Amino acid sequence: MKIYADNAATTKISDEALDVMIKSMKSNYANPSSLHTLGQQAKSELENAREIIARCINASPKEIYFTSGGSESDNQAIRSAAYLGKKKGCTHIVSSKFEHHAVLHTLKALEKEGFSVTLVNVNSNGVIKADDVDKAITDKTCLVTIMTANNEIGTIQPIAEIGRICREKGVLFHTDAVQAVGHICVDVEKMNCDMLSLSAHKFHGPKGAGVLYAKKGIILRNIIEGGAQERGKRAGTENLPAVSGMAVAMRESIDKLEVNAKKILSMRDFLIDGLKNIERSRINGDLEKSLPGTLNMCFEGIEGESLLLLLDSKGICVSSGSACTSGSLEPSHVLLSIGVPVETAHGSLRISLSENNTMEEMEYIVKSVKEVVSYLRSISPVWEKIMSEEK
Amino acid sequence: MKIYADNAATTKISDEALDVMIKSMKSNYANPSSLHTLGQQAKSELENAREIIARCINASPKEIYFTSGGSESDNQAIRSAAYLGKKKGCTHIVSSKFEHHAVLHTLKALEKEGFSVTLVNVNSNGVIKADDVDKAITDKTCLVTIMTANNEIGTIQPIAEIGRICREKGVLFHTDAVQAVGHICVDVEKMNCDMLSLSAHKFHGPKGAGVLYAKKGIILRNIIEGGAQERGKRAGTENLPAVSGMAVAMRESIDKLEVNAKKILSMRDFLIDGLKNIERSRINGDLEKSLPGTLNMCFEGIEGESLLLLLDSKGICVSSGSACTSGSLEPSHVLLSIGVPVETAHGSLRISLSENNTMEEMEYIVKSVKEVVSYLRSISPVWEKIMSEEK
Repeated sequence: MKIYADNAATTKISDEALDVMIKSMKSNYANPSSLHTLGQQAKSELENAREIIARCINASPKEIYFTSGGSESDNQAIRSAAYLGKKKGCTHIVSSKFEHHAVLHTLKALEKEGFSVTLVNVNSNGVIKADDVDKAITDKTCLVTIMTANNEIGTIQPIAEIGRICREKGVLFHTDAVQAVGHICVDVEKMNCDMLSLSAHKFHGPKGAGVLYAKKGIILRNIIEGGAQERGKRAGTENLPAVSGMAVAMRESIDKLEVNAKKILSMRDFLIDGLKNIERSRINGDLEKSLPGTLNMCFEGIEGESLLLLLDSKGICVSSGSACTSGSLEPSHVLLSIGVPVETAHGSLRISLSENNTMEEMEYIVKSVKEVVSYLRSISPVWEKIMSEEK
Repeated sequence: MKIYADNAATTKISDEALDVMIKSMKSNYANPSSLHTLGQQAKSELENAREIIARCINASPKEIYFTSGGSESDNQAIRSAAYLGKKKGCTHIVSSKFEHHAVLHTLKALEKEGFSVTLVNVNSNGVIKADDVDKAITDKTCLVTIMTANNEIGTIQPIAEIGRICREKGVLFHTDAVQAVGHICVDVEKMNCDMLSLSAHKFHGPKGAGVLYAKKGIILRNIIEGGAQERGKRAGTENLPAVSGMAVAMRESIDKLEVNAKKILSMRDFLIDGLKNIERSRINGDLEKSLPGTLNMCFEGIEGESLLLLLDSKGICVSSGSACTSGSLEPSHVLLSIGVPVETAHGSLRISLSENNTMEEMEYIVKSVKEVVSYLRSISPVWEKIMSEEK
């Protein structure tokens, strides 16, 4: 038995999206920039996908720019706003301590170029206070970038409110919605955002395809220069099969959003019921304000990596945090940001579900996590110390 | 009948590459950065692809960085070398007048940042003189970037010689080999290059996948910041299905390189024989020093766009130049660089073949081009003027 419960890292492509990709590769392979019939057919498929995607997030097709994925979108959004700001002498950026590294590392690179960055704190429940963002904004702020939902603990942020504050203050607002699209309602109008990043492989679309939404009037800066694709803002032959697959997967996941969320929530509830009473464990992030499929827990006295490797030996694929930072010995910056002590943060487990999981799998996960936590603690000197101190 | 003869714009994916992609998407969908078994399986497929690709161009796997395509690779190579140079006070770059826009526009952007650029001339036969590159190098030069084969006229450049000059002078050398890989022998050692860009969809691989080869010791600069993928030099979840498809397509095209080249050359020879005697036509670029599949011609007195649209109406898909600049009213910078007069450059036609074309198609193309050129001239005031001046 193999149980895949690492859907925040990536998802399996849906059958429908795969079919569309294969069809595109086989029979619509021309370059969408070519003027001949086959090129124009490809162009038409591309623009059809753009319309579907725009509709899914309540944007206009002209506001959709195709990229290679969420990281590229984040990089381009942030650099675009930063350089627009710089022209007006505004070189301050507001973000948060638990953003994805595609955001944090871009900000670090900008700091070296003379920009200043304020990272607002995250509440212990994993939710940022809009008021903290408000206070961090100065008259030199050119951009606020706050994620829609966190990739490790799944907490959803008060994006609409933060967006409203940014509008009032005339500051551009970007949100990394990579974990959110396809899982909760994402509407660029309601969210008051100027730019938004998303990635297809997080909602059963293909890898290598993403979108940068940029509200009409925002002049993007290229991070890839060259041909005139994407209205001159993103060079490179359009990855049509992946874009078409992304459109289909996005529509599918949004059409089934409520049904899937209900199913996924009931499975997560089962996990919580089964695991919450494990001694000296904690659930990270406010479950009332989180993505349906993400459950992040810490177990004192054990190492997250050992936990996930032993679960893997039982056929369960989960993670201790973000896939992008796996292999790192540093504790999760996300968990530290919500106040989890360093030693506890090392014992983290992220289970992330999709509608393809089953209740039977949940039963097996609960049983296995209990066994493995118990075993690891039985051989852990740290746990022994905790227990002896307790007495 | 549809004849696809625009293979320099993009190629149809091979059956073998498509099969590998489907298999990867269906059964190896985990994130290669995940530590569990499925993640490690994906990682193993990724590294296997890296080894295949490295072998194909005589590099080591650690010198292969996966990107989203040729444009991204060009951008990253040039920016990496530029910023490395800047640290040493070397801010001069040498390139040529007929590079792809992924190179030229990146250089333009760098000029705005204070770099200076020398674009060497191209000979009327479409081949750069290594000596001209040599003369353009100063003690402030940090990079020479010259394409391996031109995308519009197919001419192959003296890369090994230019590379040797750069080595002697201690200047980094990058080559955009996007049009060359899979069509002629590309060996990074023999070519004496430090960096090389390639793109999968030009050799029957998938769109959205490319490689930046960077010789051991060269410290790349990220253009996409974020996770630690590609040894920290290119963030974003790896596009494993596309990378695997690219590896298969590359090996396939290199294995069949000689057989395919022979077939393609005989088809191109047939085209040349049939078209070269059209009055006031010219073949652009030295056919003895060019890719087997590319034929670029100009026909005085007609517009290239009309030519390709009428050929399209006869079921023939060709182009007037680069797909990346299609729709532009500017004459090709490539043709201007080799001294084609502006008015003649407007009447250009690029026919680019693959091994999937047939001799029967060539017969039809010759017949059709003759008809269309003749028809367009019969209604062209420009042609009437040329004829009356001749008398």
